[in-house]
Amino acid sequence: MRRTRIAEILAEEKIGAHYTVMGWVRTRRDSKGGFSFIEVNDGSSLSGVQVIADQSLGNYDSDVLKLQTGCSIMVVGTLAASPGKGQKVELKAEALEVLGWADPEIYPLQKKRHSYEFLRTIAHLRPRTNTFGAVARVRNAMAHAIHTFFQERGFIYLHTPIITGSDCEGAGEMFKVTTFDLNLAPEKDGEVDFTKDFFGGPANLTVSGQLEAEIYALSMGDVYTFGPTFRAENSNTSRHLAEFWMVEPEMAFCDLEGDVELAVQFLKYIFASVLDSCKEDMVFFNRFIDHSVIKTLEDLISQDFKVLTYTEGVEILKKAGQGFEYPVEWGSDLQSEHERYLCEKVFEGPVVLIDYPKEIKAFYMKMSQDGRTVKAMDVLVPKIGEIIGGSQREDDHDILYNRIKESGLNPKDYWWYLELRKFGSVPHSGFGLGFERLIQFVTGLSNIRDVIPFPRAPGNLSF
Amino acid sequence: MRRTRIAEILAEEKIGAHYTVMGWVRTRRDSKGGFSFIEVNDGSSLSGVQVIADQSLGNYDSDVLKLQTGCSIMVVGTLAASPGKGQKVELKAEALEVLGWADPEIYPLQKKRHSYEFLRTIAHLRPRTNTFGAVARVRNAMAHAIHTFFQERGFIYLHTPIITGSDCEGAGEMFKVTTFDLNLAPEKDGEVDFTKDFFGGPANLTVSGQLEAEIYALSMGDVYTFGPTFRAENSNTSRHLAEFWMVEPEMAFCDLEGDVELAVQFLKYIFASVLDSCKEDMVFFNRFIDHSVIKTLEDLISQDFKVLTYTEGVEILKKAGQGFEYPVEWGSDLQSEHERYLCEKVFEGPVVLIDYPKEIKAFYMKMSQDGRTVKAMDVLVPKIGEIIGGSQREDDHDILYNRIKESGLNPKDYWWYLELRKFGSVPHSGFGLGFERLIQFVTGLSNIRDVIPFPRAPGNLSF
Repeated sequence: MRRTRIAEILAEEKIGAHYTVMGWVRTRRDSKGGFSFIEVNDGSSLSGVQVIADQSLGNYDSDVLKLQTGCSIMVVGTLAASPGKGQKVELKAEALEVLGWADPEIYPLQKKRHSYEFLRTIAHLRPRTNTFGAVARVRNAMAHAIHTFFQERGFIYLHTPIITGSDCEGAGEMFKVTTFDLNLAPEKDGEVDFTKDFFGGPANLTVSGQLEAEIYALSMGDVYTFGPTFRAENSNTSRHLAEFWMVEPEMAFCDLEGDVELAVQFLKYIFASVLDSCKEDMVFFNRFIDHSVIKTLEDLISQDFKVLTYTEGVEILKKAGQGFEYPVEWGSDLQSEHERYLCEKVFEGPVVLIDYPKEIKAFYMKMSQDGRTVKAMDVLVPKIGEIIGGSQREDDHDILYNRIKESGLNPKDYWWYLELRKFGSVPHSGFGLGFERLIQFVTGLSNIRDVIPFPRAPGNLSF
Repeated sequence: MRRTRIAEILAEEKIGAHYTVMGWVRTRRDSKGGFSFIEVNDGSSLSGVQVIADQSLGNYDSDVLKLQTGCSIMVVGTLAASPGKGQKVELKAEALEVLGWADPEIYPLQKKRHSYEFLRTIAHLRPRTNTFGAVARVRNAMAHAIHTFFQERGFIYLHTPIITGSDCEGAGEMFKVTTFDLNLAPEKDGEVDFTKDFFGGPANLTVSGQLEAEIYALSMGDVYTFGPTFRAENSNTSRHLAEFWMVEPEMAFCDLEGDVELAVQFLKYIFASVLDSCKEDMVFFNRFIDHSVIKTLEDLISQDFKVLTYTEGVEILKKAGQGFEYPVEWGSDLQSEHERYLCEKVFEGPVVLIDYPKEIKAFYMKMSQDGRTVKAMDVLVPKIGEIIGGSQREDDHDILYNRIKESGLNPKDYWWYLELRKFGSVPHSGFGLGFERLIQFVTGLSNIRDVIPFPRAPGNLSF
């Protein structure tokens, strides 16, 4: 079966060329003169191609006049300039074959607006809509841009484990993985006997590949992960998923300054790529979802990212005289309202905050000389606040050992992580970025469940 | 911190250029004349750079003469032609700084051969060896080639869910995912009450993204997945992992013939890419691991893939007069010995077998007109046998419904999969490929645990 993708036909506009198109009918409109306009979409672009089918087709009455939204067809025809409004070209059908029908009585996707809530219940059909088709293309373009960005810079793509016995930050709530029958697990001394489970110990789904990425950074130099991560938090919000994709670069011989630099380059590269490769889809989002998405991305590509310390940021916020919902004091975690205030009101652009109090950051971040702060960074952007979090990593064995103990963790669980600091330790840094939140930012979609094909959330395991 | 990667220095051979190199010491050799040869590797290539450090360095006695395998150093120096054997260029150190020491009394990676078994116990250090550094670079190159292959052909990269309520083939043993305390899960009527678990129902780790990929193929046209998949089989072999990465393209408007064509193009592309982009590493594998790997790949790139039916294959095998361990009869699953015999003895090259008996293939494969076979394909290569399995998918609702029932599955569990055949169904096809087995094939490494950074297997959850 040979076909030409509609995106290619529309891009080339080769009048007189002969094509075979296969796709799904979006609409059919019949004209009095005994011919019909059929809009066909094959997912390759937001726009479909307009097909003109007339009575010269032997199956005009038996097939064409019965076509409904959702039917799949094959059309062989010649491309012509379109006299009508809305499209430059149209395909004059010389043959049309119905591949699959779609009964309008039961096909749930009719030519009207459906709520996102409803569309989530038909996730097997929603990619056939304009919005979710565009999301799929933009998501693909962004994923590919991520790989291209790192590959061009000589980074090694690393697959860190999904099932893990360790807990990266000693904080995230984790899903358990087992082959036991629940409530029938073998016990020993009144406790579940995990030595009899598949892995011989308690197993969880990873919350981050960072610690393992550090292993490879300390061998290969520059590496990155791009894979699924998990949180078992019972957060039923528009910003949380139980399963999401994360990007985590990790660089040897790199301090916090280099980390900030890479994060800024990274964001600019992804934004420029998606504006370039998904023009039509981005215009669609800008028109129907959020009128500011294109300008926001263009601004970020051209603006400098203002770098200042957490301490400086807190000073500014305290002087702001702004009625924040959450008060700001040195040592407290900044909220989205504070981050956005810095970006939107103070600097009118993106901000990188560095050098956070050690108490509000993870144990593995490098202690500064002042003994109070760690070499952390948060990259903040207008509209949402933090989009990237990262740090230089503690590379001194003894300091790290103490930080692990201070954090209430057991150094034995981190034996190999500590050993990396015994054998050829080097300054190294990295950051993490939640892929779905980046897609939300780029598309303007307000619910994170709409930017991943099959969202996983509390009570939500469909498809 | 600015450095130049050693791979770049060695590739450019700019005599007289000034560089900063950072990496790990592999060996140090002292010469009588008061200078030392230090081999430094930074993971960017198999070869390290030879550094010449002499007494003009202020820290020659205090630092250089104490350097041991595994120490990390920074060297600033000038590139010179090397008079010695084994390298074309060397770096004359003008400054050398030790970043991190490695006590030779306890550093496990000394300059000698270590067994793979031992290296698996120090997976945090094994990427610093020649073999595992090369595996990391080849794995990266192959992963990137996979993305490039599909992106160049207009395929959409799709993230299918890891946690799932469905079981793709109704066969694979699956890991359970829960937030319950094991043995303390709430019960109702004597059964575990999964309505109280995180997702409101029993949840598992996916064995395949195929069914969800079909959703997107039937909206977007051509898609592919590349993500982790899981098997809870208690197989402690050199060919099985509990967690591995799989590539699964799925194409709408594509029959079995198109599927075969894509699979063949795909393999040739990946093999050619890795030979081209990882020359030095491939020469290393060819020399130290398996003397035939380069020729095997070169042959596959140039050879035609012989396509024949399973029935024809079985006839050939029955006439072979070969003493197979497993007997061959029409209707039996072919073993690796049979597949290899066809490739190595009969056709002296790769083979694609098509049209398998329906009894030995999955329910979703398209029934042929003969009522006995399905439109399946297995791509077979010398040395290992099957490397890719795929099929055209059943696109007829009623036939699929009956196949699901025949297979002892509940059609209600496949409601959305069945609906895809009600609403604009189209011919479509796809295949699956286990990424780690492909890396084994390319590198010649005999144990699958050595081609993934952190292997997961029964009893094995370290790192």
